[in-house]
Amino acid sequence: MQQIYLYQNRLIPLTQVHISPEDRGYYFGDGAYEVFRVYNGILYETEAHFTRLKKTVDALRIKLPADHTALTRQLEELVRANRLQEGIVYMQITRGTAPRVHAFPAGAEPVLMAYTQPLARPVATMEKGISAVTTEDIRWLRCDLKTLNLLPNVMAKQTAVDHGTGDVVFHRSGTVTECSASNMMIVKNGVVRTHPADNLILHGVTRAVVLRLAQSEGIPTQETPFTVEELLQADEAFITGTTVEVTPVTSVDGKPIGDGRPGAVTRQLQQAFEAAIPTA
Amino acid sequence: MQQIYLYQNRLIPLTQVHISPEDRGYYFGDGAYEVFRVYNGILYETEAHFTRLKKTVDALRIKLPADHTALTRQLEELVRANRLQEGIVYMQITRGTAPRVHAFPAGAEPVLMAYTQPLARPVATMEKGISAVTTEDIRWLRCDLKTLNLLPNVMAKQTAVDHGTGDVVFHRSGTVTECSASNMMIVKNGVVRTHPADNLILHGVTRAVVLRLAQSEGIPTQETPFTVEELLQADEAFITGTTVEVTPVTSVDGKPIGDGRPGAVTRQLQQAFEAAIPTA
Repeated sequence: MQQIYLYQNRLIPLTQVHISPEDRGYYFGDGAYEVFRVYNGILYETEAHFTRLKKTVDALRIKLPADHTALTRQLEELVRANRLQEGIVYMQITRGTAPRVHAFPAGAEPVLMAYTQPLARPVATMEKGISAVTTEDIRWLRCDLKTLNLLPNVMAKQTAVDHGTGDVVFHRSGTVTECSASNMMIVKNGVVRTHPADNLILHGVTRAVVLRLAQSEGIPTQETPFTVEELLQADEAFITGTTVEVTPVTSVDGKPIGDGRPGAVTRQLQQAFEAAIPTA
Repeated sequence: MQQIYLYQNRLIPLTQVHISPEDRGYYFGDGAYEVFRVYNGILYETEAHFTRLKKTVDALRIKLPADHTALTRQLEELVRANRLQEGIVYMQITRGTAPRVHAFPAGAEPVLMAYTQPLARPVATMEKGISAVTTEDIRWLRCDLKTLNLLPNVMAKQTAVDHGTGDVVFHRSGTVTECSASNMMIVKNGVVRTHPADNLILHGVTRAVVLRLAQSEGIPTQETPFTVEELLQADEAFITGTTVEVTPVTSVDGKPIGDGRPGAVTRQLQQAFEAAIPTA
């Protein structure tokens, strides 16, 4: 079956989606995006994603072409058109098409596109965990905005691949911020710690879900920065994200975290996460 | 006449250039670019631009589809096809088209596009100067790479427009780096000062031209950082760039620089710059 895209209110095959070379997304990365999880054909945490999208487009002063409810309906139609059961919906919106001038063009209409991708839950890595390598976080100071300017994340992910690890751990002068496309949490003496939701990290939807689940499981949480040293001394570490869910990190820079195996708190949160997955 | 694009080795009208929504330039800003000046139908400082492009694509590990000589020939053909006399050539290259995964895709072919735009020399602003407004430089720490991740520059330029000024002056905790799409120089006691060419600024082609011209004019130059306070206390200030050439900055944050008029050293450098423009 040919992949169906949502493009400017129409559902059309990928091969018919023609982006203009004058789309500001193409030459400036001037746009925002979200990646939604789909479980059993159902969009997951839709409201949280749209709230974050709203924050990004407001900061960029891009106007969404429709409200959350209408956009959700369009994404649901896209999911049905592609008969997606397990996977993701990628959606992006750019400022629009105009001759290249830095300042906002008058009268440009935002360009919205979305597609689906089948993707199984990451069962194997959730079971055995991943390794990671630390790297200096050289990104801009608005990492809380989910924009199309993703080169630092691309380069970091490639660094992880080059090292044969699952991801990088970003740090600013030794303070851990997050990973290349997920948030990082550690467990020490039974307490879950993660970087506060400020301008230095993306405010992950799964991060919020996991913090909520920890609370309802009676696991104390702390949103305070921690260092690479504290990460290496932690009892457990894991990352959270839309596609990785709750994935254990069992070694960093070649050194085991805790006993080098996924820990008990991580397992508890994985189970709580799984129990909250919507079923058809 | 319809605008002709260079797209993957072909010269075709804009309306026939169809960018794939799977182009990594579109969803990651995963690419590099250059803007060349054309004077009297002649590409200006071509070697310097290609040397910088090479530095950027090497850092991003994108392979240029041809060498400098062949690419220059293609851009010259593009200039002729559009009968361009005074203007610019914009050229960008992305990592290529592939399903969205952060790490480099295997086998993707870089996508190169270029177009021309008629543009007169900025005679009026070079004559009377522009005002500017300071803003915190929140960009990533590889500003020396000319990539398609330009949102901070876009937002900064819009800030300038919102303030009714010609540009912003970026500073990091009070140290001036550059402007939104040009380098900044000040003159104090006859010495021209500009931020060193490190990772915090773009190494402007015009910046290098002007530093060379200053030397041959016997004007001392210093590549050392200066503060916003030193900018405000300077005798003269100006910006350098491919389209702005040497444009005086006569006020910053509403305060006059020197006597609030373009200064003598700025004028001398403008004349030297003009004398070096290639003629047909």
